[in-house]
Amino acid sequence: MSLNSFGHLFRVTTWGESHGPALGATVDGCPPQVPVDATMLQHWLDKRKPGQNKNTTQRKEPDAVEILSGVFEGQTTGTPIQLMIRNTDQRSKDYGDIVEKFRPGHADITYWQKYGIRDYRGGGRSSARETASRVAAGGIAREAIKAMAPDVQITGYMVQMGEKKIDRTKFDWDQIGQNDFWCPDADAAVEWESYLDWLRKDDHNSVGAVIEVVARGVPAGIGAPVYGKLDTDLAAAMMSINAVKGVEIGEGMAAAALTGRDNADEIFMGPNGPEYSSNHAGGILGGISTGQDLVVRFAVKPTSSILTPRKTITKSGTETEIITKGRHDPCVGIRAVPVGEAMMACVVLDHMLLHRGQIGENRGAIG
Amino acid sequence: MSLNSFGHLFRVTTWGESHGPALGATVDGCPPQVPVDATMLQHWLDKRKPGQNKNTTQRKEPDAVEILSGVFEGQTTGTPIQLMIRNTDQRSKDYGDIVEKFRPGHADITYWQKYGIRDYRGGGRSSARETASRVAAGGIAREAIKAMAPDVQITGYMVQMGEKKIDRTKFDWDQIGQNDFWCPDADAAVEWESYLDWLRKDDHNSVGAVIEVVARGVPAGIGAPVYGKLDTDLAAAMMSINAVKGVEIGEGMAAAALTGRDNADEIFMGPNGPEYSSNHAGGILGGISTGQDLVVRFAVKPTSSILTPRKTITKSGTETEIITKGRHDPCVGIRAVPVGEAMMACVVLDHMLLHRGQIGENRGAIG
Amino acid sequence: MSLNSFGHLFRVTTWGESHGPALGATVDGCPPQVPVDATMLQHWLDKRKPGQNKNTTQRKEPDAVEILSGVFEGQTTGTPIQLMIRNTDQRSKDYGDIVEKFRPGHADITYWQKYGIRDYRGGGRSSARETASRVAAGGIAREAIKAMAPDVQITGYMVQMGEKKIDRTKFDWDQIGQNDFWCPDADAAVEWESYLDWLRKDDHNSVGAVIEVVARGVPAGIGAPVYGKLDTDLAAAMMSINAVKGVEIGEGMAAAALTGRDNADEIFMGPNGPEYSSNHAGGILGGISTGQDLVVRFAVKPTSSILTPRKTITKSGTETEIITKGRHDPCVGIRAVPVGEAMMACVVLDHMLLHRGQIGENRGAIG
Amino acid sequence: MSLNSFGHLFRVTTWGESHGPALGATVDGCPPQVPVDATMLQHWLDKRKPGQNKNTTQRKEPDAVEILSGVFEGQTTGTPIQLMIRNTDQRSKDYGDIVEKFRPGHADITYWQKYGIRDYRGGGRSSARETASRVAAGGIAREAIKAMAPDVQITGYMVQMGEKKIDRTKFDWDQIGQNDFWCPDADAAVEWESYLDWLRKDDHNSVGAVIEVVARGVPAGIGAPVYGKLDTDLAAAMMSINAVKGVEIGEGMAAAALTGRDNADEIFMGPNGPEYSSNHAGGILGGISTGQDLVVRFAVKPTSSILTPRKTITKSGTETEIITKGRHDPCVGIRAVPVGEAMMACVVLDHMLLHRGQIGENRGAIG
Repeated sequence: MSLNSFGHLFRVTTWGESHGPALGATVDGCPPQVPVDATMLQHWLDKRKPGQNKNTTQRKEPDAVEILSGVFEGQTTGTPIQLMIRNTDQRSKDYGDIVEKFRPGHADITYWQKYGIRDYRGGGRSSARETASRVAAGGIAREAIKAMAPDVQITGYMVQMGEKKIDRTKFDWDQIGQNDFWCPDADAAVEWESYLDWLRKDDHNSVGAVIEVVARGVPAGIGAPVYGKLDTDLAAAMMSINAVKGVEIGEGMAAAALTGRDNADEIFMGPNGPEYSSNHAGGILGGISTGQDLVVRFAVKPTSSILTPRKTITKSGTETEIITKGRHDPCVGIRAVPVGEAMMACVVLDHMLLHRGQIGENRGAIG
Repeated sequence: MSLNSFGHLFRVTTWGESHGPALGATVDGCPPQVPVDATMLQHWLDKRKPGQNKNTTQRKEPDAVEILSGVFEGQTTGTPIQLMIRNTDQRSKDYGDIVEKFRPGHADITYWQKYGIRDYRGGGRSSARETASRVAAGGIAREAIKAMAPDVQITGYMVQMGEKKIDRTKFDWDQIGQNDFWCPDADAAVEWESYLDWLRKDDHNSVGAVIEVVARGVPAGIGAPVYGKLDTDLAAAMMSINAVKGVEIGEGMAAAALTGRDNADEIFMGPNGPEYSSNHAGGILGGISTGQDLVVRFAVKPTSSILTPRKTITKSGTETEIITKGRHDPCVGIRAVPVGEAMMACVVLDHMLLHRGQIGENRGAIG
Repeated sequence: MSLNSFGHLFRVTTWGESHGPALGATVDGCPPQVPVDATMLQHWLDKRKPGQNKNTTQRKEPDAVEILSGVFEGQTTGTPIQLMIRNTDQRSKDYGDIVEKFRPGHADITYWQKYGIRDYRGGGRSSARETASRVAAGGIAREAIKAMAPDVQITGYMVQMGEKKIDRTKFDWDQIGQNDFWCPDADAAVEWESYLDWLRKDDHNSVGAVIEVVARGVPAGIGAPVYGKLDTDLAAAMMSINAVKGVEIGEGMAAAALTGRDNADEIFMGPNGPEYSSNHAGGILGGISTGQDLVVRFAVKPTSSILTPRKTITKSGTETEIITKGRHDPCVGIRAVPVGEAMMACVVLDHMLLHRGQIGENRGAIG
Repeated sequence: MSLNSFGHLFRVTTWGESHGPALGATVDGCPPQVPVDATMLQHWLDKRKPGQNKNTTQRKEPDAVEILSGVFEGQTTGTPIQLMIRNTDQRSKDYGDIVEKFRPGHADITYWQKYGIRDYRGGGRSSARETASRVAAGGIAREAIKAMAPDVQITGYMVQMGEKKIDRTKFDWDQIGQNDFWCPDADAAVEWESYLDWLRKDDHNSVGAVIEVVARGVPAGIGAPVYGKLDTDLAAAMMSINAVKGVEIGEGMAAAALTGRDNADEIFMGPNGPEYSSNHAGGILGGISTGQDLVVRFAVKPTSSILTPRKTITKSGTETEIITKGRHDPCVGIRAVPVGEAMMACVVLDHMLLHRGQIGENRGAIG
């Protein structure tokens, strides 16, 4: 019941603050004999790493992950895996102003009210740096999935920056890795680049984003009814990421505007089992996977740490203004892409293990 | 780790199928000495009850709740409360066609694939009838909240039916109980009524909806960072309701289109503590309540059980069509309103108890 | 985190008081397609049923179990199974004296101090009647084990009543069902009978007991290190039974007196894998089963409800004496035998499912 | 549901192997504003540290604990606390023989069968070194208890080594810290010393022990009925310690031999509330604390790693003999004393938080 853990059988607990000595994840319940080494995890951490281009925070962190336990001679042993990432670039002096003042739209005030103490340096526990731990854990999950179901592919990308959405007709999987925004629409990426440049340099502002994560090749049958639903756990996983304010499965909020006739994904019989005319359901019916693509979207709010002055109060209740200097992401949604992928990987693996535990293998053949 | 449970300290496990002898909820962790009787719970169940007007399913169920344990001489004892609702109107013969055929957009096919067995009568465990158990449990939660924080008020309402949204300038709390749709905009309610009439009688169709649930008076400080976030648990709670495809906190998906300057809820000092210029955050920062209104929205997809034929397959893999006769809700979102309220009540109480457990009382005074 | 639940994947929540309308168990996580009906469960409930002979309480309860959900056409569906047992013989007037007075050695006083309210009728939630729910749930577990590992056999028996222990050289499995005490030593059973007669009728007293539960045929490899150890979960399961004060695995407390040379179960290679020279370990090494018999013992204290006056106080703090009339078990350990078996079945099944979830099948072949 | 975690609200997850780079504990749910620093924790680790005298393993480990997160400016912040202990003296070459052979009475064989891989160096995850993590976590728990209930005192000691028990009439609290055995009976300590000398040097053997842990000053009312019982959680906590085979609360296994008349702790009214004539119950009735001393005992089996040859098999199934050279504890029970104390501290704190969460403060006044 740890409030810093998620997952049922594949269970991840993250720990650490932005400017403490280190942060990391304790990963329990991983199947044994999964080939894992630090290099494999580093691949995913490098996707999330700050300071890689002008569109993300200029904080320089190598985000080098160390495996302290649970892996022996290149394989998981089935015991807890401790992943540690040392903090190196902790220019704490940049944050002096937030010791006394609460940033509007930030967790500063609620942490203070609840706990009576907060590590104000870089946001402490509420910093987006915490998500590095998730990405490391997600790297473990990816390898474990690969060992069980090699066809599963998990890919995230941005579909909206501010008010600017991609054009779905220009969607190109191969574009995703070709720009700074994990954007599948090459034209949108160009437009976003100049927009974000202006926002950062001229407008001293930040902006939100929508990220979509797709898992292809997930077998039918994983998930469970009622509160252990696959969509419930995906919603929780994504909503737990810093700054996320909305989560959608398949058609998402737009499902409200559809009629039953339009929303039904009609079913046909294909050579390898059921096939569907469409995927409004996002690959989940009744909390259980259909075998179609799992499709999740989430909205990330704009960073509250901006150079434009905002009205606020101090700990002693005095009204004042705040400008957050620091080194912040103009669109933190960009770096949320690998985080969303990691959460998807953790949830999918967890439900594959749960399914195997309770059921063994799918029971109901069709045809 | 029960997949049919939710909550940390206030823990609800629901059980039962649509056409079995009964369904209910096992409620554990309720504080003692909370005044509770069946009448109090019945009040909320009656809001969700089917067959009350032409806009909901014509199934007639008294939904009378019995308290089998955990309440003694009109008060909770702190031990598990068993709530049972007998099924009475189980016209199983109506459902003959779905024994062999899978309804598109319904959990029929995934239950079958996973378990190799399903109680097809009325959707079995995947029926929306399961939500009666939640409403009963939510009634307990409401009374326990009242005993701890009498000012908390939890209210749900519909803000969208199909493509038709309410006009927020006409929002009137008092209207919510005055129409069949829990609609706070009287004009919208009139329009929805005729639209739904046409949809049901002439179009043989169904439609989705968006429900908003607001908790007013919740104290600052409840919730927790990272995976035990208040918004994470609210997202999970709402996504676990049948047919929900999207969940939003505060600004929700629209937060993506905002800039940091616009999204920041500026902070001022009021006579009783911090006050905010706006509530884009939906009352939650860093997973912890701010003391503002908690605002959650969720989208309910249209019922898949409609009178219009849809293409599907049988268990033996033969392609066919299906018309679902039964007695279904043309807009199941209507009856989701009290369910959303119940889930909000359960989550708020749970986090109040968690907060008291770890923290005692808020630690950080302001001013 | 329900405090009335146990198990990880196979999760049992019990509810109900001694003199309420009913009590029962919510069983979640059972594999689907396990053949189950009420008759199968009744078989085990009848072993625990009160009033069967003069050696147990004279309360007459049919303990008839109803299955309210989770079973369809004679098979489990994989959804929660609700088991309900109605209370019928609730002679509450017998208990008048305990409304104001606390029985020494009973939970009366601690329930009162903690909750400020208690259902005093028959001990309420703290009554040994709660164990009927466990036996019903254990019946489900037995059937699920049978479907996965048909060779597993779970048998409990009494090895000590008061100071009188069985003679291990006279141990006879076939005797266990032949006397009122589940005693494997026929001579001891005769002696116990006359001792208990005297104790009940002449001495107005009660006595403790030691029960041993053995699971034969459990495959090697179930369990897990550190806190999810098989022995940890067995200890918790047995200690959670009313009146239990000690739990032993294999050699148990006597292991303290052994040397390493004597305690080591030496390993040999048999035709079907490893074999052991002895079983001091009780079938568990490092929290994981060896494939030998699982051997658990627990001590049940004597009933505190006796006809001999004991000194106590009232709710208002007045010193007084109490005699508990009611209809109590002179040796409640007798009826704890089927309860211990049920707990063993639940733990073994739970760990079989956990093992299948994380590992699939045993990974390390020998020879 | 992590199998390497325990606790409900105060939740400890340990990680690490005997000869990996480090091991530690992730501690979640600690109340904020508890004064903690590494020195406080080191005090308890030093009690458990190997190589302090000839009676324990000669492995030299400083067991220096680092706090990597969750503590800021000398106080807990309410976020997860990461405690890391580096392994320094990893003379792996000593363990060469156990790569292929399984030590009888050790987890070697079951880890291998289950996982198909094991970190054989020093026992890997199954090494008693894991308990250093528990002692560090217990240090946090002690400080948190002190902040809530300053009168609580937790003390462990050995009451039996091999067949040699202490004489309870010579019990002296002040002796406990005066000898190498945490023995409250000075004469027994002298006898144990020479016995252990002979056992180690001449007999090449090891021996078991019984440890008792007492918590004084714990308020009445903590704990919960049925599966969240205080005694259930204590039993699980102690049984989860390496090599423990039996757990007793209060009278323990000896309760079986008592009659109801003798076992009842009679109740009187003292100046500050109820008082008891005796403490057969070990401070717990119905799973809830009475306010008397909590008394737990557990038996530790003798180390299986001894210099005397024992028969065993290899991974390939060949029969052979094994002598475990290494540097092992002749009586590992000695170092289990601070571990038992740590587990007691964690359980007591956890239940204090749970109690505050569900109940607030005790509800039922007496007198």
